[in-house]
Formats: sequence, structure tokens, C-alpha cells
Amino acid sequence: LATRLPAVGTTIFTRMSALAAQHDAVNLGQGFPDFACDPRLVDLVAGAMRAGHNQYPPMTGTPALRQAIAAKIGALYGHVYDADAEITVTAGATQALTTAILCAVHPGDEVIVIEPAYDSYMPAIELAGGVVVPVQMALDERGYHVPWERIQAAVSTRTRLIVVNTPHNPTGTVLRDADLEALAGIVRGTDILVLADEVYEHMVYDGERHASMSRHPVLAARSFVVSSFGKTFHTTGWKIGYVAAPAPLMAEFRKVHQYNVFSVNAPMQHGIAGYLADPAPYRELPAFYQNKRDLFRAGLAGSRFELLPADGTYFQCVRYGAISAMPEAAFAEWLTAEVGVAAIPVSAFYRQARESGIVRFCFAKRDETLALALQRLARI
Amino acid sequence: LATRLPAVGTTIFTRMSALAAQHDAVNLGQGFPDFACDPRLVDLVAGAMRAGHNQYPPMTGTPALRQAIAAKIGALYGHVYDADAEITVTAGATQALTTAILCAVHPGDEVIVIEPAYDSYMPAIELAGGVVVPVQMALDERGYHVPWERIQAAVSTRTRLIVVNTPHNPTGTVLRDADLEALAGIVRGTDILVLADEVYEHMVYDGERHASMSRHPVLAARSFVVSSFGKTFHTTGWKIGYVAAPAPLMAEFRKVHQYNVFSVNAPMQHGIAGYLADPAPYRELPAFYQNKRDLFRAGLAGSRFELLPADGTYFQCVRYGAISAMPEAAFAEWLTAEVGVAAIPVSAFYRQARESGIVRFCFAKRDETLALALQRLARI
Ligand SMILES: CSCCC(=O)C(=O)O
Ligand SMILES: CSCCC(=O)C(=O)O
Repeated sequence: LATRLPAVGTTIFTRMSALAAQHDAVNLGQGFPDFACDPRLVDLVAGAMRAGHNQYPPMTGTPALRQAIAAKIGALYGHVYDADAEITVTAGATQALTTAILCAVHPGDEVIVIEPAYDSYMPAIELAGGVVVPVQMALDERGYHVPWERIQAAVSTRTRLIVVNTPHNPTGTVLRDADLEALAGIVRGTDILVLADEVYEHMVYDGERHASMSRHPVLAARSFVVSSFGKTFHTTGWKIGYVAAPAPLMAEFRKVHQYNVFSVNAPMQHGIAGYLADPAPYRELPAFYQNKRDLFRAGLAGSRFELLPADGTYFQCVRYGAISAMPEAAFAEWLTAEVGVAAIPVSAFYRQARESGIVRFCFAKRDETLALALQRLARI
Repeated sequence: LATRLPAVGTTIFTRMSALAAQHDAVNLGQGFPDFACDPRLVDLVAGAMRAGHNQYPPMTGTPALRQAIAAKIGALYGHVYDADAEITVTAGATQALTTAILCAVHPGDEVIVIEPAYDSYMPAIELAGGVVVPVQMALDERGYHVPWERIQAAVSTRTRLIVVNTPHNPTGTVLRDADLEALAGIVRGTDILVLADEVYEHMVYDGERHASMSRHPVLAARSFVVSSFGKTFHTTGWKIGYVAAPAPLMAEFRKVHQYNVFSVNAPMQHGIAGYLADPAPYRELPAFYQNKRDLFRAGLAGSRFELLPADGTYFQCVRYGAISAMPEAAFAEWLTAEVGVAAIPVSAFYRQARESGIVRFCFAKRDETLALALQRLARI
């Protein structure tokens, strides 16, 4: 069987988690919390099963969950999506991203992807028959940022889609209003669409606000905005996400969605819809994770790691040039095997090998876990 | 946004369920049970959530569930799949089918689809850039059966995949060993693969046995065998399915799977793995549904509907020519609106309109529900 995805191997997350397990390392690699979700959320899902919500939900998602999502977006970002025509519940954000790409990208279309990039975007584009046009983020003393002039320069008559991700995995960069303006300036008057991966929307720190595409009229009108409950509610294994988009885009999304998964786990949808009635859990998330970020950064402050900014996400990138000249993958493996702390090489987020001497730690861990990792890292 | 799936509208299942709700009809349209799943299964899932199985499971599925699936297939069909390399858990059977098509079908490849066909196969093939080659089932006094000589005649040098479905939705036809032999004769010595939709595997009646592709060495060696727990455990809304395939095929499947959904709901996987330890629930399923089939057939025996054979699935097809000359879609709508019983027109399972004067009823309903439907149908 000839492969449709020649560039694809085992994901770096799977590989580093396996290596962490093998060496009994503290796993700050793959991004997931090591603490429990709210038992109330569990009770809501269990209650939905007991109440008999175990058969096919509507293809688009349960009405209650779609309404709760629309209400949340409206309250936070001021854009009112129609819960019936503009919101679809998905089997996690990855399914939403891939489905959006499959519905929007025709063979030969170009898609601009900003590197470092989450690893699912490019294979999905290739599966759709699209052409990936990578543009690398700029990296200087201020950390990573998006060079809009290079994105403008990458636009061609074949450009169909620009994929953006804010807060950004792996760099922690958050877009600001000026970034949205720059992106709007690029797409205004064109038929270029935007696919926005906003799964870390509730992890923006230091009083900044999340620059959702939904906030900007020009962008909201042409964006698939993707998010998920896995990161927000500490349930990455539940795989419930969603996409919000203007009705004409959503109609195309649903054509693919209904034949990709048809519909999404019913009791989880019911439980999450009930849980969303209280905004406290996601409103309190920035403070919760900012504490962890600050704890982790304080712990590394005296070390030979150089901290990059971490304005959003639950990731902290560090330069390790003062410790080693190893390439990133080798350094991450050494850290895991020899120091006992797993990390992710940022090079894994580039298609063409790019070595910056930077690895990514995930700080979505119990304070004791972070303390143990810091203790091990301090030995270097 | 130009569409990638011009032929796709709202699925017939969604439309008829909506119509049934509107007219307060007994919904024998969309295939799902109207009774509860086993509370023990619910407890197992709730227990998994409480035990903290809420983060990303392995991309391929939890080891316990993959092992339980391999053990079940081995015990029932005598083929031993490697749980690590040859089984992957999916977000329902639809996702498994579409992912298998996306990984196996290259642009321009031909795929033979046997009509009437479940509605997801063809859009998935088109999304992959493949060419659908439809072959219609033969229909005579004995009901529907697969005309293997016509399938042989449809094979070309471009044929990449043959999609089969047994027990067959919507017709209830089950393949026999002779069918497997005929299919094996067609694919032997070629590089044609088989995609087998076997989601009704535990609904084969009258002492017949399910002709899984896994039973036949030639077919097992080149098939993606897809099944799901939704039909088997009365949980169509949980969306947990799986695919079994030889390691080289599975490697390609996983490349697409990991970027389509990455992984599948963790607590559901844990709960189902525990529940599979007891084979009684699926071993008792044929008798359970055969009772319902017999009840439903007995109820229609004196009516002007002509019963087609129903050897498998939870569907009963009937000819209505003695009642009406309406096209199938119109008749199904009339039944729903005027008689108060929703059905599915079999014509919806054909790409090119084909009118056979046949509609499909789902008998996966409480006996009282079936009795109410029969009472209404008797008024015709
Ligand atoms: C889907 S596994 C990867 C989790 C994640 O988002 C990350 O670690 O970047
Ligand atoms: C995915 S909704 C359709 C359910 C079903 O399999 C059927 O009714 O044929």
C-alpha cells in the first residue's frame, strides 16, 4: 500500500511520553495535566449516561452544548454565533482542524502555515491535496513573534487558507490586537480563509486578553475558530472540541464532518453543556496556570536555562545553549534519560530541520510534580 | 467557498428523525435502540472517570481495549490480530471507514461500492480523490444478494478497494462462506484491498454465523475490518469503534488516524474494555434481536406490506407496492406524517435514483414501541 503521508511517523508526543515512562522521568513533554478534573464535571457526565443520553446526538452537536458554546464566545469575545448554523461539536480540536482543512482546501490550493506549527496541520493539508507554504516565526531577544510582512509576501493567487494558532503551541506567544489587524489587512478583499487553533484560549497571562479571531469583524467573517474542552477542563482524554464559523463555511464543514465522524459522544456533550452554565472554571483558569508558570519560571531562574517569554498556553520554552550544543531532539532525549525530565524539542514543530537550541516544557502539573522536575533540572 | 462534496446534503437519517419528531411518529427510521444500555457498562465508564482516566489515551487506543478486541475476534472468528500492531480504536465506525478510505485511496483510484450502500462510503471516497464504481445488488424473490460476477466485471487495473458490508445495511442480507470465497477469488493475486463494514456482526439470525473477513485467510490479509460498540452495547451515541487490519495496512491507517482525531475518548475505552471481559452481552445479542425481528415480522404478516428476508442487522425491509405507487422518499414521508411511523427509503442508499418500492424499518425498539408501530401500520 503506497503511503498517502510519506512525511509522517510516530508523533513526537507519543515518542517522548514512551521514553519518559521507560526512564521514569517526570513527563513535562506531551501537554496534559497530571491532576484530576472537577468531580462535578464527572458527575454531570455520569448523570447524563444514567439519564439515558446514550444514543446518536444530532450530527452538529447537542443543542444545549452548541448554545452554551455560542453564549461563552459571545460573552468573552463579543461575537454572536448562531448556535444552530455556526457551531459544530467535534471529536476534539484535532478532528475540527483536519475537517476544516478537508472541506476548505482543494487539490493544488496553497495553505500558509506558521512554523513552529502543531504537527497535525501539515499532514491534513497534504491529505486534502493542498500545498503547504511554511513561514517561520521570527525569533529574537523578545522571543517568537509572527512576521506578518513575510506572511504577506507568501500570499499568492493560489492561497486558500492561513492557519494561525493563538496562544501558540509550542512557543507560548499570544497574538495582540495589532496582529489581528495585520492579518485582517492581508486577507481583506481576498478570498483567503483563516483557520484558527485557539485551544489555549483560556491560558493568557499577565492581564492580557485572548485575541480570538471572533473579536475582529473582518476575521470572524472568514475564520474557522477551533477550540476544545480538553485543555480548559483538564480532560484532554475526552476529545470534545468545537468549531465556530460563519454559516456558509459551516455548511461545508458539516458536509465533511458528517461523513468523518457523523456525531460526537453524547453523554460527554450533555455533561459539558451542564458544566458550562458556571463560567467560574474557565474564568479562573488564567490565574490557576499563571501561578504554575510563575512557580516553574522562578525555579529555573537561577539555572543555566534561558527562559523565553511564556505569555500563554501551558508551555515554557527554554534555551539550553549554555548547557549543551546538542541538537534539540538529542538534548530532549538526554534530559529525559539522564536528568529524568522529559521535554519536547521545538525542532519537531518544523518541517525542515531547524535548530534553535530550544526545548518546550509543559507546566500543567501538580506543584509537587513541578518541584520534583525543578529539583532534577537544578542538578544540571 | 467552493464545495468539495457537491453531492452531499443533510443525511436521510437526520431528516427522517426530524420529521418523526415533528409528527410525533414512532421512529423506526434512523437505526438506534430506544431502550437503555446495561447500567453495569455505565458504572464502568463512570468508574474510569473517577479513577482519573481522563487524559490522552494512546493514539492507537488503550492497550486493555485493543487486547479485548483482539481476544473477541480471535474467539469468534479464529483470526489472531496483534493487539499492538493490528488494532486501532476509533471515534465510531464512521471515522474508521473514512480514515481507512483516506489512507488507502489515492487520487484517481477506483473503489467498488455495492449499492444500496451506507451513505458515508461515497463521500469519503470522493474526499480522497477516488472514483466510485457502483455495482447494484441483485434483487429477486429471495431478496437482495451480491452479484459477484458483476463485481468481477467492474474490476479494472485502477481498482484499489472494494467496500463490503455484512450484515448489510439497509437490506439485512448476510454474506455466506460462498460469498467470501467469491470475493477472495476476485482479489487473489491482485493488489486490491477490502474495506469491510461489520458493525452488525452480532446481529445474525437463525443460527447462521457472521462471515467476517477475518475468517478467510486471503481476505484477512488484505482487509480493513471495521466494527463498533454502539450497535452491540446499545450505545450508538458513545462513538467508539475500531478497525482491525494486517500491520502494513494498519501503519498507513494510523498515519491518517493520528492527524484526524489523534486519539479516542479515554473513559469510554476503559469502561468498554472492562465490560468486554464478559462475552455474554454480545453472545446473547442474536437471540435478543431475533425475538424482536420475529415479533415485528409476525405483526406485519397479515398486512399489505411484503416482507423481505431479514437475516441480519436490526433492519426489516418491506415492499409497499400493494399499498402505494409513490416513490420511496414520498412514501416514507407519508408513512411518517400520516400513519405515524417513520421509515427510511432504500432509494436514499443509491447514488443514482433507483426506485424499488421498498422502505426500511428499524426494529431495535422496546416491544411496546414495536407494538404501537404495528398497531398504526395495521390501519393502512
Ligand atoms: C495530541 S498529543 C499532544 C498534546 C499537545 O497538544 C502538545 O503536547 O503539544
Ligand atoms: C449515523 S446515523 C445512521 C444510523 C444507521 O446506521 C442507520 O440508520 O442506517
